[in-house]
Amino acid sequence: MANVSIIGASGYTGAELMRLISAHPDLDLKAVSSRQFCGQPVEQVFGALGGEVTLSFVEPDHESLVKDIDLVFLAVPHQAAMNAVPDLMAAGVKVVDLSADFRIKDASLYEKWYVPHTCPEFLAEAAYGLPEFNRELIKKARLTANPGCYVTSVIMPLIPLLRDGLLQREGIIANSASGVSGAGRKASLNLIHGEVHENFKPYAVAGHRHTPEMEQELSLAAGGEVRLTFTPHLLPMDRGILSTIYAKPADKVSEKEIYVSWEKAFSNEPFVRILPEGRLPATKEVRGTNRVQIGLAKDPRSGLMKIFSTLDNITKGASGQALQNANLMLGMDEGLGLTGLGQTP
Amino acid sequence: MANVSIIGASGYTGAELMRLISAHPDLDLKAVSSRQFCGQPVEQVFGALGGEVTLSFVEPDHESLVKDIDLVFLAVPHQAAMNAVPDLMAAGVKVVDLSADFRIKDASLYEKWYVPHTCPEFLAEAAYGLPEFNRELIKKARLTANPGCYVTSVIMPLIPLLRDGLLQREGIIANSASGVSGAGRKASLNLIHGEVHENFKPYAVAGHRHTPEMEQELSLAAGGEVRLTFTPHLLPMDRGILSTIYAKPADKVSEKEIYVSWEKAFSNEPFVRILPEGRLPATKEVRGTNRVQIGLAKDPRSGLMKIFSTLDNITKGASGQALQNANLMLGMDEGLGLTGLGQTP
Amino acid sequence: MANVSIIGASGYTGAELMRLISAHPDLDLKAVSSRQFCGQPVEQVFGALGGEVTLSFVEPDHESLVKDIDLVFLAVPHQAAMNAVPDLMAAGVKVVDLSADFRIKDASLYEKWYVPHTCPEFLAEAAYGLPEFNRELIKKARLTANPGCYVTSVIMPLIPLLRDGLLQREGIIANSASGVSGAGRKASLNLIHGEVHENFKPYAVAGHRHTPEMEQELSLAAGGEVRLTFTPHLLPMDRGILSTIYAKPADKVSEKEIYVSWEKAFSNEPFVRILPEGRLPATKEVRGTNRVQIGLAKDPRSGLMKIFSTLDNITKGASGQALQNANLMLGMDEGLGLTGLGQTP
Amino acid sequence: MANVSIIGASGYTGAELMRLISAHPDLDLKAVSSRQFCGQPVEQVFGALGGEVTLSFVEPDHESLVKDIDLVFLAVPHQAAMNAVPDLMAAGVKVVDLSADFRIKDASLYEKWYVPHTCPEFLAEAAYGLPEFNRELIKKARLTANPGCYVTSVIMPLIPLLRDGLLQREGIIANSASGVSGAGRKASLNLIHGEVHENFKPYAVAGHRHTPEMEQELSLAAGGEVRLTFTPHLLPMDRGILSTIYAKPADKVSEKEIYVSWEKAFSNEPFVRILPEGRLPATKEVRGTNRVQIGLAKDPRSGLMKIFSTLDNITKGASGQALQNANLMLGMDEGLGLTGLGQTP
Repeated sequence: MANVSIIGASGYTGAELMRLISAHPDLDLKAVSSRQFCGQPVEQVFGALGGEVTLSFVEPDHESLVKDIDLVFLAVPHQAAMNAVPDLMAAGVKVVDLSADFRIKDASLYEKWYVPHTCPEFLAEAAYGLPEFNRELIKKARLTANPGCYVTSVIMPLIPLLRDGLLQREGIIANSASGVSGAGRKASLNLIHGEVHENFKPYAVAGHRHTPEMEQELSLAAGGEVRLTFTPHLLPMDRGILSTIYAKPADKVSEKEIYVSWEKAFSNEPFVRILPEGRLPATKEVRGTNRVQIGLAKDPRSGLMKIFSTLDNITKGASGQALQNANLMLGMDEGLGLTGLGQTP
Repeated sequence: MANVSIIGASGYTGAELMRLISAHPDLDLKAVSSRQFCGQPVEQVFGALGGEVTLSFVEPDHESLVKDIDLVFLAVPHQAAMNAVPDLMAAGVKVVDLSADFRIKDASLYEKWYVPHTCPEFLAEAAYGLPEFNRELIKKARLTANPGCYVTSVIMPLIPLLRDGLLQREGIIANSASGVSGAGRKASLNLIHGEVHENFKPYAVAGHRHTPEMEQELSLAAGGEVRLTFTPHLLPMDRGILSTIYAKPADKVSEKEIYVSWEKAFSNEPFVRILPEGRLPATKEVRGTNRVQIGLAKDPRSGLMKIFSTLDNITKGASGQALQNANLMLGMDEGLGLTGLGQTP
Repeated sequence: MANVSIIGASGYTGAELMRLISAHPDLDLKAVSSRQFCGQPVEQVFGALGGEVTLSFVEPDHESLVKDIDLVFLAVPHQAAMNAVPDLMAAGVKVVDLSADFRIKDASLYEKWYVPHTCPEFLAEAAYGLPEFNRELIKKARLTANPGCYVTSVIMPLIPLLRDGLLQREGIIANSASGVSGAGRKASLNLIHGEVHENFKPYAVAGHRHTPEMEQELSLAAGGEVRLTFTPHLLPMDRGILSTIYAKPADKVSEKEIYVSWEKAFSNEPFVRILPEGRLPATKEVRGTNRVQIGLAKDPRSGLMKIFSTLDNITKGASGQALQNANLMLGMDEGLGLTGLGQTP
Repeated sequence: MANVSIIGASGYTGAELMRLISAHPDLDLKAVSSRQFCGQPVEQVFGALGGEVTLSFVEPDHESLVKDIDLVFLAVPHQAAMNAVPDLMAAGVKVVDLSADFRIKDASLYEKWYVPHTCPEFLAEAAYGLPEFNRELIKKARLTANPGCYVTSVIMPLIPLLRDGLLQREGIIANSASGVSGAGRKASLNLIHGEVHENFKPYAVAGHRHTPEMEQELSLAAGGEVRLTFTPHLLPMDRGILSTIYAKPADKVSEKEIYVSWEKAFSNEPFVRILPEGRLPATKEVRGTNRVQIGLAKDPRSGLMKIFSTLDNITKGASGQALQNANLMLGMDEGLGLTGLGQTP
């Protein structure tokens, strides 16, 4: 049994954390903060949590967020996260940070894409929170940087293949599309139903902030620099990311070798499913779950490998993975609270 | 621990049963049938269940559906259900029937709205599966008739009010709208995306089969005949029913008396939530859950009570309620496998 | 040929006016205003109008909005509209006001539901812009108050029936549902996709501002007071209103008499279609058009008449009707620019 | 003035043709066929056309489809189309064929992807119906093969660039996504709302029939073989295609040169819009229109050109383009009946 709190709980990742924690047998959610909704019962903001989450939002600096707390989920935007981390570390709580602030190990690279980094001293010790490839580090971490949603979908299938030398490092293209919840719960004109519904469009096409994060992890896996072409798109739906990845196989590499590499990497992973040949991922099959589903097809004309990867951007792409990391950091079974299956339809 | 099977598991109610049972700590799903997909692994039809439900569909008369089985979920259409019930009863298994075949106690009334009844001998003993008002009967039942989805949404808030004499029996209007999954998983032209999406329309306006079922239960509660005006509509969404009910309060009955009646009826009910004054139900808050949420507003002009009731037509409106009934019939805790909260968004 | 302008053109009604006017053979759109987007080309805000509407937004007090203009569409919120009207009247332009400011003839009633009325002197002369029942007045009007979207859907089928004495004046219930564009183009949390999509809910259940407007027009038609029970709901779609109306027929009135009354009222109306018995309205069939479609079913149990009425809240419910009114006020053929049919799907 | 008919009018392309023709000033729609709905008024199948299209469906071999007809729209599936063409040619009517049967000039290539070709003798004379690049041929054609929907979106921006030598012929990738209406109006399980809504998935990933058609036209433009990697995806929406194309610029080619090439190709084209730098296409902006919108971004890391192209698969991707072709074949103004703008929202 452990006590946890959420700083910044009034966004969609906060709501998802509360939903998941309420189904977790061994976590006790003690406090949740929101500057905007401070003082209001959680149920008033998130009707779906009524009756189960009986807390009210407190101010982000409220002592209940830290006192007698084992682990804090930091679900505030980047910059706000790194402002909070030093105090949390000093207080001796463990932290899973859902923002980008500790994902990129090179502070100057971070600053190129985001803002000046105010506590680079924690960059080195922060574990990159992709349990499938970083489990042991996460278990020992005080601070875990939860990966980006697009990033998780793109690097999950690529890491084993690059590590095993099955793909060329040059020319990888990741064409991704996300449901609109990835943009958060904000009163923003471009998020209203009339602008999103029955619409599909690209955005951030000349450079999305998830690109350097993908490249960092892929380069590590490949043992050499990987430069990626990445294009995100906005889908007319709430949840779900599908990444369609084009990569050149290394000399004479067959589809079978790719499946073998994946099998080796993922056969014991509870949340990664490699689909049998001929089946392709669909976002709906993993909606609301902590799963990644991965499929493969070789283009018969170009010989390119087409790799398809899907996850729920709010669950495995954010709060589900954060809980998976928290389980590891707290010495619990990694899958606690995360076994729910997707609804049909 | 009990063994269960599902006859007719390839529809949406079947998929939902499998999803829920896979999260149930004390049920073991032994066999599932489907004439259409017989021989295929469940995962090929319902990708979301991959890895958890490892069964393949068998023929509906396969012995594994009954042998060593404690309870069968009968998720086939009406008529097929009553054809199967005598053999199941003879085999000594308990049955939760999700069809309409045993909901209407008066065989001639059933026949007016459906087809000739082939085994009226089980009508009397079949428990009407609304646990909130019928719990003790269900606990002892061999055969439980799971209520209709619209029916559950309409009668849940009305039964206590009619029982307590707070509403006039005359002139109740139920204006309901349902997501399209209520029509099942069928290759039907009027269910394809192009016909449903960005569309809203009434149907079955001169008489829907759920009307006599509502009237039966409401008349029982009122201790006198209740005749209902019911209008269903089709929503451009997958899941969710909202019923907007107009009823005349009995002489001088106030909103407060209504809340008191509901409080009395539901304060210990795990799956019925009465919303505080000023909050109104929204289908999304109960999506994928076994919950009913109920709200109230008095029209200041006409004095009519407006009662709002929402549930997920596949969960509390069908498979969730079926599992709740099964838990009761098997002597288990009623809420097992049914505590999941709705996702936001 | 006439010159028109739009004050407040950056909302959905403004965009729709621009779309419709661009297809109008005899109107020349000279200027459009928007405080928020002032100085920006229209195309930057509404990509769909690119190439056709080459204007840029000007300030709301820009002289081009009035100078050499024959008619102004006033598409600003209530209050802003009545603040602008005196100057526009003084300038000698005709005005179609899409706001509520001149719809309710009784200033004190208006003030009860909205705000203090600052120019009640124009209330008497403002024509109520429902051409099907007010054509001659509109033709001569300097100022036309364009009806509310819900109002148009509810009163269109009821006016002839009340006028002809076919319905009882007591107990009419209008249960309506609207696509989200009815709430306008605003950066509002409750309008974002995550809150609206796959959701259905009631709102303003104890009193919506369109109620007094409906009652005013229905009472006029009935020759006596009509009090209405009205409940709006929010649909997970962009466009479309469906009103499901419950009304008691006057003594012995049959469905046939209702059809006859409608036939008499609407047989020459280009934008009102009475559906043959057995066919029911669906919002999608009138999407993007200036049409109202009306259907009827008698409830065999209660004897209530169920009247179904659908329109596109942005077109016949706002900008299309405004253009229809403008055509009349300018002495043009009423249907110019309004003949487009709905898309399938 | 000309007389036209539609063979196979009960699908979505048929409905769209009827919608567009009803707004065409100089076309008279004389007959429409449907085997399935033969004898039924069009309005019963497509409520949106009520009052305007007063025809009833006839059998596909009905003489009214040809007699006194100037041009026939052939909106039947491939194979059925080529079975009908010889008789239509013999009857002296002009034909716009919306199927794939006459798009691919090489009969053996056609047969590899489709079925045996039963009238290859018309392949040579059939004009490929992309007016922007084939206008003069279409004007003189008796038979025009209307391009595929994905094809139009992909080749429109690429043809001028390949013709002008601005792109390398090797390694072009087209990642496309389409609304579900592209799959037609069919009672098919994978098209029902529950399977499509809130879902996004790839399909036909190892080879879609539109690939050889794209390659044929791109190779012609490039003056040498172009081999394409193409991946289609299914969007949870009704209408709209977005193609995201990755291509290597030829040596030192800048974005500016690409814009110049497009300007040269499209500046006088009524239905192709090149968006200014920084603006990107969105499917909703062209929904229901005959427009293609094209945008560009150079990836700063890989140097790849990202080309974005959007259209409505039913309009410019099928029936709108068919009408544009018909206008040309009949000597009419190319844009007649096709000037409608997209709705917002």
